Amino acid sequence: MINNARVAVVGVGNNTSALVQGINLYRSTGSLVGVHQPRLNGLGVGDIDLVAAFALSEGKVGKDLHHAIFAPPNNFPRLDADLAPSGVNVQRGLTDSTEIQRVTEALRGSEVLLYSAPSGRPDTARAYAEAALLAGVAFVNTTADPIARDSSLLKRFEQAGLPLIGDDLASQFGTSVVHKALLHLLQERGLTLVSSYQVNLGGTEDFRNLTENSNGKKRSKMNALGSDKVELAPLGYLPHLKSHKVAHINIEAQGWGETAVSLDIRLKVHDPSGAAGVNIDLIRTAVTALRSGRGGYTAEATRHLKSPPGTPV
Amino acid sequence: MINNARVAVVGVGNNTSALVQGINLYRSTGSLVGVHQPRLNGLGVGDIDLVAAFALSEGKVGKDLHHAIFAPPNNFPRLDADLAPSGVNVQRGLTDSTEIQRVTEALRGSEVLLYSAPSGRPDTARAYAEAALLAGVAFVNTTADPIARDSSLLKRFEQAGLPLIGDDLASQFGTSVVHKALLHLLQERGLTLVSSYQVNLGGTEDFRNLTENSNGKKRSKMNALGSDKVELAPLGYLPHLKSHKVAHINIEAQGWGETAVSLDIRLKVHDPSGAAGVNIDLIRTAVTALRSGRGGYTAEATRHLKSPPGTPV
Amino acid sequence: MINNARVAVVGVGNNTSALVQGINLYRSTGSLVGVHQPRLNGLGVGDIDLVAAFALSEGKVGKDLHHAIFAPPNNFPRLDADLAPSGVNVQRGLTDSTEIQRVTEALRGSEVLLYSAPSGRPDTARAYAEAALLAGVAFVNTTADPIARDSSLLKRFEQAGLPLIGDDLASQFGTSVVHKALLHLLQERGLTLVSSYQVNLGGTEDFRNLTENSNGKKRSKMNALGSDKVELAPLGYLPHLKSHKVAHINIEAQGWGETAVSLDIRLKVHDPSGAAGVNIDLIRTAVTALRSGRGGYTAEATRHLKSPPGTPV
Amino acid sequence: MINNARVAVVGVGNNTSALVQGINLYRSTGSLVGVHQPRLNGLGVGDIDLVAAFALSEGKVGKDLHHAIFAPPNNFPRLDADLAPSGVNVQRGLTDSTEIQRVTEALRGSEVLLYSAPSGRPDTARAYAEAALLAGVAFVNTTADPIARDSSLLKRFEQAGLPLIGDDLASQFGTSVVHKALLHLLQERGLTLVSSYQVNLGGTEDFRNLTENSNGKKRSKMNALGSDKVELAPLGYLPHLKSHKVAHINIEAQGWGETAVSLDIRLKVHDPSGAAGVNIDLIRTAVTALRSGRGGYTAEATRHLKSPPGTPV
Repeated sequence: MINNARVAVVGVGNNTSALVQGINLYRSTGSLVGVHQPRLNGLGVGDIDLVAAFALSEGKVGKDLHHAIFAPPNNFPRLDADLAPSGVNVQRGLTDSTEIQRVTEALRGSEVLLYSAPSGRPDTARAYAEAALLAGVAFVNTTADPIARDSSLLKRFEQAGLPLIGDDLASQFGTSVVHKALLHLLQERGLTLVSSYQVNLGGTEDFRNLTENSNGKKRSKMNALGSDKVELAPLGYLPHLKSHKVAHINIEAQGWGETAVSLDIRLKVHDPSGAAGVNIDLIRTAVTALRSGRGGYTAEATRHLKSPPGTPV
Repeated sequence: MINNARVAVVGVGNNTSALVQGINLYRSTGSLVGVHQPRLNGLGVGDIDLVAAFALSEGKVGKDLHHAIFAPPNNFPRLDADLAPSGVNVQRGLTDSTEIQRVTEALRGSEVLLYSAPSGRPDTARAYAEAALLAGVAFVNTTADPIARDSSLLKRFEQAGLPLIGDDLASQFGTSVVHKALLHLLQERGLTLVSSYQVNLGGTEDFRNLTENSNGKKRSKMNALGSDKVELAPLGYLPHLKSHKVAHINIEAQGWGETAVSLDIRLKVHDPSGAAGVNIDLIRTAVTALRSGRGGYTAEATRHLKSPPGTPV
Repeated sequence: MINNARVAVVGVGNNTSALVQGINLYRSTGSLVGVHQPRLNGLGVGDIDLVAAFALSEGKVGKDLHHAIFAPPNNFPRLDADLAPSGVNVQRGLTDSTEIQRVTEALRGSEVLLYSAPSGRPDTARAYAEAALLAGVAFVNTTADPIARDSSLLKRFEQAGLPLIGDDLASQFGTSVVHKALLHLLQERGLTLVSSYQVNLGGTEDFRNLTENSNGKKRSKMNALGSDKVELAPLGYLPHLKSHKVAHINIEAQGWGETAVSLDIRLKVHDPSGAAGVNIDLIRTAVTALRSGRGGYTAEATRHLKSPPGTPV
Repeated sequence: MINNARVAVVGVGNNTSALVQGINLYRSTGSLVGVHQPRLNGLGVGDIDLVAAFALSEGKVGKDLHHAIFAPPNNFPRLDADLAPSGVNVQRGLTDSTEIQRVTEALRGSEVLLYSAPSGRPDTARAYAEAALLAGVAFVNTTADPIARDSSLLKRFEQAGLPLIGDDLASQFGTSVVHKALLHLLQERGLTLVSSYQVNLGGTEDFRNLTENSNGKKRSKMNALGSDKVELAPLGYLPHLKSHKVAHINIEAQGWGETAVSLDIRLKVHDPSGAAGVNIDLIRTAVTALRSGRGGYTAEATRHLKSPPGTPV
């Protein structure tokens, strides 16, 4: 029998809520509905113990993790899972780099640090990576901040025999996945793309942050879809959607005889579920690498990442 | 330089209209928009000459092919192609098997007979196949009637060194292609399918025929989609759609934490274009096999067929 | 203070389930969400007591009403309402007219008989109307069977001072309501309708019955929408939809300069809720008329009916 | 017989293109497809002569009007109308108020000045209104700039016996019209609105301008829809849509028993057609008022305006 993975998490937002609730749901019911890989390297989706958590907001610090995941602005729904108190108190996260020592101490006993804070604070991300190095735990960076793409940092994790996995999580089932699959299908069948657009609407805090600096995001997505015929409408922050993401996709093409083909798609998902469904795999990949002494990046993670090492920063 | 393929066609419906107009469009403009394979075995999409055509309706027989393709109930649109008279007069098709000799004579000089009549008349299909054997031309069966699946017939084509390709055309880009791609994507990403439906609406004569015996069709499609969670609504014959097909597809699934994922798709295509875009490949495959003396079935065709040899009749 | 309305119901299907659960929900929570008329003639939506119920299926007869409404093939969801046993045992309904006397006895103490059985059994409907006449209770016919449109029957209710309300319930918010509103809007703004279609999909027993004789229904709806440019696809019975109805509506029109305008709508509702939301008004209308001695038809009901008296049978 | 209306226009953008082409289309074909009022105050839609036009862009000034309407960034399609040279040369518009005299001279012989320039330049709008006063022609302001709402200006038009109609055109069939009709229907049927959103996408220059200062627009629309449950996503400028506007509307509500009702709508229109279809009425209203000596505002116009006199500026 394998020991459960011992995980610390930075950020107690919707994604952590989805992860924690999902683990408890699957553990208690034995269900495997919506699970990508029931067992990965011998670890089931319930074989994860959250042993430490860090957050900054007053409403979360000092609370039991199973309580803090419902504090606003979190708006991921309460799943039908048994959530007895976790015994893990949310600790105050890093606010400046003089506190790395405190966090390092708090990480003792963890095997993996899942960095799941909002994107856009690279210094903070790097400070947590330093703490992980000092504490001897693997590091998983789900944000767009360049950590695994920082080659000197990656080299230090390699030398320490500690896994470093990142950057930037690809959702289990998001707009890009669907849009790309359909554009690819079109091409494979010999149709000619005329034009296409994508509108993304959401109600999470994360979404609100993205709308404020959406231009960079927009451009990178554009590239991901690989065509200048694909246009992205600005992100729409619609609070009533809560943790749902709604996407409208349109594809106009031409088939034989240059006749019109059109496709309209509406996709509705819970954004944090898409993140948690991938984090559960990254955690298991990281802990397995750690236990077998493989430091640095692990290729197995590449399919779940938008910007693995080697991607331009 | 390769000689143009010399093709005779049975059935002057919408699919033949789309094929004939498309060939002329691409030939005159040099465009390759919407073309799956610009060149197949060295033959371009314009390297096809229609040299004989058979139909039954009074409005078509005796007319020039480029005129007959617009006779009702045909309702595929007039493309922006130059359509000078073809010089090919539509001949009366077979009404009983005593006329095989007449058709055989009419096939002299053709290399391929494209059988593109309505499904549901297996005896007629077989009589044309006999004529093809006698005339020494390859046979392509686009209908659901079992011709290439008739093993004794297939053997006779093999022995005669004549290609026999069929049965039942898969559209270049139809509802099944899109529905299956999305169901497959769902599975690949680890989501659990809850339920799904598909509604198909169309306005062609073909569509009207299908609505009258849709049950068989329904069942076979169900199998094609490979899940008892996928339901098909009855086909809807809506004359105003003319040669358009409109499909509504819904997919309800569950992702991580058993949270809901839903996808709604509306697809609008010209049904006959989907057929012609595949026929252009089957013709080129057949003529190439004929010229190199390969009789019987050609595996290259399998991707374009719903029921190749070996499929249960 | 007004006494509660005392209501007997024929048919313990989804519509009765929605009615009974809704009354209890609103009564216990005080909510008015989704209620068309919170108070009608002084009666609130909670001021209705179900005092008798008739059904035919073995799974329902002899059961407490609050239990029977969940027996298959009923598939309306369990609402979040407190459903203590009702004390009303479901009685065996009429199977032939010799039993009118039994039913008449069972109706003593009721004020209104709500006839909510499946459409298509006019003799049965008429027998219950006879029982209502004998017992001195008002009659509400929600089915398409001609009861209020039967002028001799209507006259007898008038003479007895008993209200007779019907026929054929119009849903609170169904496909026709939305489709007609949009076609009307188009016309009002000066657009020219080119074509339109409507597809209805559902999973109730009711829906399944309708698909079996949908032609008549189809024609009558067509008229209701008032244009030969509006086409109805065949009803689709899709069991997994349960008590949901899903409609796809398309409208193609032309505006200034003959340029194209297109509208695509997807509507998803709980069919039985649409019925119950109207029945709650018809019951209150009927009991008010009864108490004030107004027999026969009441014009107040007309807005909720597809075929009030005077409509051709 | 009534004389044709003699109209000068400021702005040779898409809306003017739609107006000019439409008039010619209807005049030459006799069609009335998509026309709101075939005859208004005795004037048909073809009874309008464009006699002067003002623009600023180099690509338009000095060109024949029937040529200038196709100059970029205009992207309204070429309709199937006979467009012989109009004989009207586009004149340079006002760049500062010293030129009012020049424009006044150019307006001699016109009856109505249709102000159809981009919104957001109130000084320019006012200068043209001054020129109209001096030249003795009626003024129609289709922009959001406050002209008819300027009470001192309105008074001067009244005293001069000249009609002044504005401000801010309501489209013949736009997103707001459809959204409001459906929200109203919901309310009328007793459903409770839970949430609703609207996304507008378009490809005109006009649309691009709006995206740059969409906040004000957003707020005013919000009010127009009359509920804080209705959220507007940011406008999306998608060049490939050209003069199309695409809107995605979602409405989530609750019906009887608090059960869910959802509506999803996709609307696709040519934005400039919606403007021209209303301008054709405003012109006829203005010329009729002028000819009968009624100066100032005309109530007949109110249904076509977002901000008639009295609306807060």
